[in-house]
Amino acid sequence: MKIGIMGFGVVGGGVGELIATNAESIKRRSGEEITVAKILDLRDFPDSIYKCFTKDFEDILNDPEIGVVAEVMGGTNPAYDFTKRLLQAGKSVVTSNKELVAKHGTELLRLAEENNVNYLFEASVGGGIPIIRPLYTSLAANELTDIYGILNGTTNYILTQMIKNGASFEEALKGAQENGYAEKDPTADVEGFDTCRKTAILASLAFGKYVNSDEIPCEGISGITLEDVAYAAKFDSVIKLLGMTSRAENGVYAMVCPAILKSSHPLAGIDDVFNGIMVRGEGLGDVMFYGRGAGALPTASAVLSDIIDTVKHKQKHIRLGWSEGEDGYLLDSKTLPGRFYARFKRNGEEPFSGDGFDVITLDGAEYADEFAVVSPSMTEYDFEALLDGPLAKYELLNKIRLVAE
Amino acid sequence: MKIGIMGFGVVGGGVGELIATNAESIKRRSGEEITVAKILDLRDFPDSIYKCFTKDFEDILNDPEIGVVAEVMGGTNPAYDFTKRLLQAGKSVVTSNKELVAKHGTELLRLAEENNVNYLFEASVGGGIPIIRPLYTSLAANELTDIYGILNGTTNYILTQMIKNGASFEEALKGAQENGYAEKDPTADVEGFDTCRKTAILASLAFGKYVNSDEIPCEGISGITLEDVAYAAKFDSVIKLLGMTSRAENGVYAMVCPAILKSSHPLAGIDDVFNGIMVRGEGLGDVMFYGRGAGALPTASAVLSDIIDTVKHKQKHIRLGWSEGEDGYLLDSKTLPGRFYARFKRNGEEPFSGDGFDVITLDGAEYADEFAVVSPSMTEYDFEALLDGPLAKYELLNKIRLVAE
Repeated sequence: MKIGIMGFGVVGGGVGELIATNAESIKRRSGEEITVAKILDLRDFPDSIYKCFTKDFEDILNDPEIGVVAEVMGGTNPAYDFTKRLLQAGKSVVTSNKELVAKHGTELLRLAEENNVNYLFEASVGGGIPIIRPLYTSLAANELTDIYGILNGTTNYILTQMIKNGASFEEALKGAQENGYAEKDPTADVEGFDTCRKTAILASLAFGKYVNSDEIPCEGISGITLEDVAYAAKFDSVIKLLGMTSRAENGVYAMVCPAILKSSHPLAGIDDVFNGIMVRGEGLGDVMFYGRGAGALPTASAVLSDIIDTVKHKQKHIRLGWSEGEDGYLLDSKTLPGRFYARFKRNGEEPFSGDGFDVITLDGAEYADEFAVVSPSMTEYDFEALLDGPLAKYELLNKIRLVAE
Repeated sequence: MKIGIMGFGVVGGGVGELIATNAESIKRRSGEEITVAKILDLRDFPDSIYKCFTKDFEDILNDPEIGVVAEVMGGTNPAYDFTKRLLQAGKSVVTSNKELVAKHGTELLRLAEENNVNYLFEASVGGGIPIIRPLYTSLAANELTDIYGILNGTTNYILTQMIKNGASFEEALKGAQENGYAEKDPTADVEGFDTCRKTAILASLAFGKYVNSDEIPCEGISGITLEDVAYAAKFDSVIKLLGMTSRAENGVYAMVCPAILKSSHPLAGIDDVFNGIMVRGEGLGDVMFYGRGAGALPTASAVLSDIIDTVKHKQKHIRLGWSEGEDGYLLDSKTLPGRFYARFKRNGEEPFSGDGFDVITLDGAEYADEFAVVSPSMTEYDFEALLDGPLAKYELLNKIRLVAE
């Protein structure tokens, strides 16, 4: 089987490296030899072991020997157009491109089915952690109810630095950039957009109907301070950025926000660039997947697992996908009950107290005029009403959407 | 697609229940309706929603409409004979029967291939946790190096009771039996045989050659005392029963034994009846799978996922399996370096001290004449030589094969 690679960056280079070094075991597992026939990239790679580079997409599209193409260029343009044309030409496409899957997955999966080929995207969520395939294979017998987790390694690294080493958000971000864990423009990571796209893919696949990532309420970690970390610690908890989706009777909930997790929570101990994804199903209980959520070789190995799967399923469409979304299917997350955290300056007033509320105060002069509360379970609308009512006399310093045991 | 179920105990009943209650989503996922045509069991179930019981295996074997059979009877006799005849008759078999897979998997997988049908066993390890399928799909692109984990819920429950609640082994076992987590005869669980079979299956599948569970060194938890738990705690560690296998240049290592894990180890926090399985691959790093390793519905859902997979792959053999084992392939685990724990009565002698050794002592009169050591990394032969040499003057109270960060 000959394959094409579109994009020879970190992930594409990793795919090339794995195919070159693991040729024999790949052959044993897929049943035939896999060789790279063409690599599309605008740059030159004179030192690469590969000599089959092209700058013209048509070279891959029109090569009748290429049956599978790894799209690892990222972004939606021109990846969207290229992927469409490849599928229409009867070639399978495997990808790590979460942006494209989150935006155009419905159409691309339909095109793959119509042309009896495959569009697979194991690498789009969780790097090398197998999570996409279990959702349409091993876990397919379960009525899944919830998926939530730490889906972004950059923000988890930053939060870990804040929690364990007392680094400020800015210091931790700088360190992440110096270590290559964060991009120069870290917006997509720290504001939660990356987590949001992955959440949309998980929600669409697990519950069968398209969820648009643009419509998911999304909050990142740039507002989290060392004070919040300290209050959480006093509450025997840590702060993590979570992507979450849950099935309800008449639709699904999805959201991305920082969460305060009790230290006994299985996700609380997942530090640094690691990801952890919890899947809950009726009967199944909780299953968690944990591993390095990014990095060249883990992500490349996920891409390669999809290549091997398409080779094993030549001429056969693998059933996965979701139907079109519909208005009102994504439910208003403010109606989903949960516990809320808020931190206040009390400006000389007595701290709030109320039935079912945990009130947290810290020692030290700098915290003398502050307190934080964790509410009992309520909707966000009810919590907002409290902030406008009995809590309005305090100065709100920060709030966090979710507190979980 | 019509299926047969052999054995209507806890798991078989769960399979029947899931098929009845999730009919629609199963149809959506597998592409066709799945109905139970025949159930083999010697008992009567007058209250079951199913009316298709039989006491005669031939009824299933000779039903031309049955394409897949779930073998959830357990044991090797008559399951081995039945499975062979079903595969030879061109029917796929899915199973939760770890004993049969560990003993006769090589032959049964070969029979499945020869007859262009499938023999799948996701439910044999980890209950509802997807671990077997990822090894031959998502993780297939990786050169795996190590798999180890907590594979038995009963022993993990007992150890958790000892660690968290100070219950003795006997008390904890009694509690496990009362809660239905342990059988009346708990030997297979507490002596590690169940973990050992699962370890053999993982080793065979991950590294491609049969490993006989009878040849894997296997030690259970019946020798673990509250004193060991206390010394481990002082060392900031917990005791867990692990099944382990690693690839080496000229073969594989495999063993089952209690291990002392630092509390920061990802497996250290896995308590009660939960299982956790770590998979390490070149490039991939560590990936962990976590969930409820037993129970009727989780295990049944794993069986059902295999049924759905065989329905999706009708007339197509799914590539998984391993080749025959060979003499010398399973390496002597005593040559595998590791750190060892041993606890001694010192009978008035000064506690041992040595380069690279951690010496642990506990407060309290009852521990005054005791100490424990954790050795630096060495082979078990070298450690045994120490026990016979410089450590021989102390009275050995217990030793534990593995200490891991």
